[in-house]
Amino acid sequence: MMNLKEEKNLPSKISEDIIALILEEKLQPGDRLPNESILCDRLNAGRSSIREAMKLLASRNIVTIRQGSGTYVASTPGMVEDPLGFTFIVDKKKLVQDLLEVRILLEPSIASMAAVHADDEDIKKITALCDEVENLLNEKKDHTQKDIEFHNAIAMSSKNVVIPRLIPVINSSIPLFVESTGNRLHAETIETHREIADAIACHDPIRAQDAMYLHLIYNRKLIHNLFKS
Amino acid sequence: MMNLKEEKNLPSKISEDIIALILEEKLQPGDRLPNESILCDRLNAGRSSIREAMKLLASRNIVTIRQGSGTYVASTPGMVEDPLGFTFIVDKKKLVQDLLEVRILLEPSIASMAAVHADDEDIKKITALCDEVENLLNEKKDHTQKDIEFHNAIAMSSKNVVIPRLIPVINSSIPLFVESTGNRLHAETIETHREIADAIACHDPIRAQDAMYLHLIYNRKLIHNLFKS
Repeated sequence: MMNLKEEKNLPSKISEDIIALILEEKLQPGDRLPNESILCDRLNAGRSSIREAMKLLASRNIVTIRQGSGTYVASTPGMVEDPLGFTFIVDKKKLVQDLLEVRILLEPSIASMAAVHADDEDIKKITALCDEVENLLNEKKDHTQKDIEFHNAIAMSSKNVVIPRLIPVINSSIPLFVESTGNRLHAETIETHREIADAIACHDPIRAQDAMYLHLIYNRKLIHNLFKS
Repeated sequence: MMNLKEEKNLPSKISEDIIALILEEKLQPGDRLPNESILCDRLNAGRSSIREAMKLLASRNIVTIRQGSGTYVASTPGMVEDPLGFTFIVDKKKLVQDLLEVRILLEPSIASMAAVHADDEDIKKITALCDEVENLLNEKKDHTQKDIEFHNAIAMSSKNVVIPRLIPVINSSIPLFVESTGNRLHAETIETHREIADAIACHDPIRAQDAMYLHLIYNRKLIHNLFKS
């Protein structure tokens, strides 16, 4: 949607043609693309240009190339690793604080949307992830990945099509938070996660929103104190 | 920060080494990377692998390759075109509504942060862009690009390091809004943009927040009515 103003070389142009073809043919995640010789014909391009273009699309996570099997539409096409380039923000303390500020703007409302729109399947998933995080915390095992999945499952349940593409990017910061806060928020995480999950299960948007605020504010208070000292 | 679980091939691995090198050496946007033979030595890799890796980094907008001159750190490294893959959301009406929902969660608070943190330079820029959008609207010319820049300048003034990477992505949707609402919101856009700019210039966070709400809610009401009929 944003236009880069630079001159595009041939493989870039062909990669745009392939994107257009995926959209026109309504190919879905996991669908196989037409083979090389069909693409050469349809896009009026040589094999080596098609191959170069596919490598570019693979690096943008639009397609997945499986050696010996073919080229497929990626599972979340167009979502690349670290798409907003957080790697290149050098001051990690500032990054943690500013990501938390953005999470506080978004996630309480998202929890409230999830409480309104979550179906039985969503509720089952959120509750199961809440259980898993709690068990891992009690066993003093790494809960980071499951914590991210818990917040992503809530984002999915909002039924807004943008939010599930946004929240995983913001919440890629959860490892930074866990690293910063160490083991200090076990009890508060267990309690507020459970309250969020229960409120969504009861379709209570206000309670879900409040519980998410509480969860994030515990984090902000602790991080504020840690970074001050 | 997010780990893709797939096996990485050699150029991918080398591209990660080059990112590490950019960070270690604290290379800034526009800085030139060491030349190929130095990179071959430092990363213990062949020229063709380095070249493949650089192509991958260029497609992720981490470096810019200038033929005959060298390879440079990109201006906003790691921010790719359409990083959240909105191209692949097929229902554009739903996309417009859901993007607007996210803008309403974020932008009023961002306007309030800008009113607190904007310096003289920021205020000058925001006011100039407000003037430009108003002139273009009065002359019935396309104001889309300047409208995006106006909202991005407010995001920059928040002094949060995440927001200026997030808002341009969300606001890549402004052309979709303008396309949907046609010429129907000229007076409201002029009035609410001016109110936002003035409130930021006066460092009045509540007024800035309210004005941004009003701006976005005019859009939501109109879009709601247009999509209903």
